[in-house]
Amino acid sequence: MMNKAQLQGLSIEQIRKHIRDGAYTGDTMGVADGHVQANLVVLPKEVAFDFLVFCQRNPKPCPLLDVTLPGSPVPELLAPGADIRTDIPRYRVFRHGELVDEPTDIQSYWRDDLVAFLLGCSATFDNALRNAHMPLRFLDQDTIPPVFVTNVQCRKAGSFHGPIVATMRPIPNDLVVKAVQLSGRFPSAHGTPIQIGYPERIGVSDLSNPDYGTPLPLKPSEVPVFWACGVTPQSVAMASRTEWMITHAPGHMFLSDRHYEQDAVV
Amino acid sequence: MMNKAQLQGLSIEQIRKHIRDGAYTGDTMGVADGHVQANLVVLPKEVAFDFLVFCQRNPKPCPLLDVTLPGSPVPELLAPGADIRTDIPRYRVFRHGELVDEPTDIQSYWRDDLVAFLLGCSATFDNALRNAHMPLRFLDQDTIPPVFVTNVQCRKAGSFHGPIVATMRPIPNDLVVKAVQLSGRFPSAHGTPIQIGYPERIGVSDLSNPDYGTPLPLKPSEVPVFWACGVTPQSVAMASRTEWMITHAPGHMFLSDRHYEQDAVV
Repeated sequence: MMNKAQLQGLSIEQIRKHIRDGAYTGDTMGVADGHVQANLVVLPKEVAFDFLVFCQRNPKPCPLLDVTLPGSPVPELLAPGADIRTDIPRYRVFRHGELVDEPTDIQSYWRDDLVAFLLGCSATFDNALRNAHMPLRFLDQDTIPPVFVTNVQCRKAGSFHGPIVATMRPIPNDLVVKAVQLSGRFPSAHGTPIQIGYPERIGVSDLSNPDYGTPLPLKPSEVPVFWACGVTPQSVAMASRTEWMITHAPGHMFLSDRHYEQDAVV
Repeated sequence: MMNKAQLQGLSIEQIRKHIRDGAYTGDTMGVADGHVQANLVVLPKEVAFDFLVFCQRNPKPCPLLDVTLPGSPVPELLAPGADIRTDIPRYRVFRHGELVDEPTDIQSYWRDDLVAFLLGCSATFDNALRNAHMPLRFLDQDTIPPVFVTNVQCRKAGSFHGPIVATMRPIPNDLVVKAVQLSGRFPSAHGTPIQIGYPERIGVSDLSNPDYGTPLPLKPSEVPVFWACGVTPQSVAMASRTEWMITHAPGHMFLSDRHYEQDAVV
C-alpha cells in the first residue's frame, strides 16, 4: 500500500493508475497539486434528470463539472482517459439513505443505466488560497478540513432535498476579504463562502465537533469561514432516502486532468 | 397592439401581463431595462435529460438559468409569478427540425410531460456594456444584432448536436479588451466572446448577410466580436432533427424578475 508522499511528483495518469490498481486508497487532500478535484454522485437514469435539476438549482454545493450519459463510466470533459468506477480511492454506497458499503472500486455495482455526476470540490480553490499564501492549517497537518451539516436547506427538485453541508476554514481577520475574492474566481469549485463569522446562523453550534474531517481550533485573530461542500449530495441521499446512490468517500476525490486555473472565471 | 415605447417605465409584472394578454408581440431588445432576459427551450421529458447534459457540456451557448420539472410552466428561480406558456411575445414550434408554427402563446401545445429550459441571453450583458458607455448601434437603431450560424460544433450529448450560433457586435478597437472583461462578469449570459476579429475562422464569410437580425456594417475603427447566442438550440433542433421542440422566436425573450447585476460573478 502506498502513502501520500509516494505520489509526489508522479503524473496525473500515474497517480490515477495507482488508485485504479488499489495501491493507493487514502484521501486526496494535497494530492496532484494544481489539478481540479471532483466529487462523485452515481444514480440510476430514472432519477438522473431530477438530480441534474437539483444541481442546477443548487450551484454552490453542487457545481456540475461533468455528467456521463447512461452506462458510460468515462468523464469526457474532465479526463477522457479515466474510469470513474476504479479511479477514486474510496467510495460510499447508500441504499434508502443508509450507508451500506465503502468499497475501493465500484465495478461490481456498475450497471448500464447508471449516470455519473462529477461536482466541483473546494480542494480546487485551496490551490488558489495556498498560492496566495493564505495559511491553511489542515493542509500543513495533512488532514481533511472540518465539515458540518448546516441547517440551510437546498432548493428541492423532484425527490431530492436536504441540508447544505459546509467546510470550515479558519481565516485570519485581515485575509477574509481576500479569501472571498480568491474563491469567487472558482464558481465551479463552490465559489464564495456561504457564511463568514457566525456559525450558529447556519446551525453550527460546536466548531470542535464536526460531522466529518478534523476539528481546527480558531486562533484569536481568525474568523470561521464556511464554504458549501461536495459532501452535500450524501446528506441529500440520507434526507431524501434515495433508493440507491454511490458517492466518493469524504476527502477521497476524483483527480481530473484539468489545472484549477483553467476554470477561473477572472 | 402596443409598441415598444409604450412599455417604458412599466413594472416587470405589467410588461409580462401585456405580453400574456397578447397586447405586445414585438421583440424584447431594450425592453425592461436591467432585467435578465432568457431564451426558451421546451422539450418532452424523455429527451430532457440529454438536453440538460447538452447544456452542461455547452455552457457558452446554453447557460442554464432555470429548469422546470415536468408539466410545470412556472420558472421558479427567475420569476415565480410567471408562466412560460404565455409570457413570451413570440414562440417557434419545430417538428423533426422544421419550423412549423410561430404562435404568440403555446397553451394549446402544452402537455404534462413537458420541461422548460430557460437559458441566459446576451441581451443581459448588453445592459452592462451600455452602462459602461460601450457604443451599441443595434440598440440605438432598435434592431436585433446580426446573428450567424457558425461552423463551430457544440459538444454532443445523446441525440443533440449542431453548430454554435453567434451574435456579432462591432466594438471599437480600444474597447475590445473592456468588452471581454465586462461580458466575462456574466457567464450566465454567454460570458466572454467566442471570436474576436476573424469571422472566417468560425465560418462567417459575409458579415452583411446574417442568418437572423439586422446587418451592422463595421466602421474602420471597429472589430467584429462574436458571442455565443441563445438561438443555438434552434440550430441544434434543425441539425438533430429533434422530433418536437418549442423555443422563443429570435429576439423575443422571456423577461425575468432578476436584475442583471444579481448574476455578476465579480
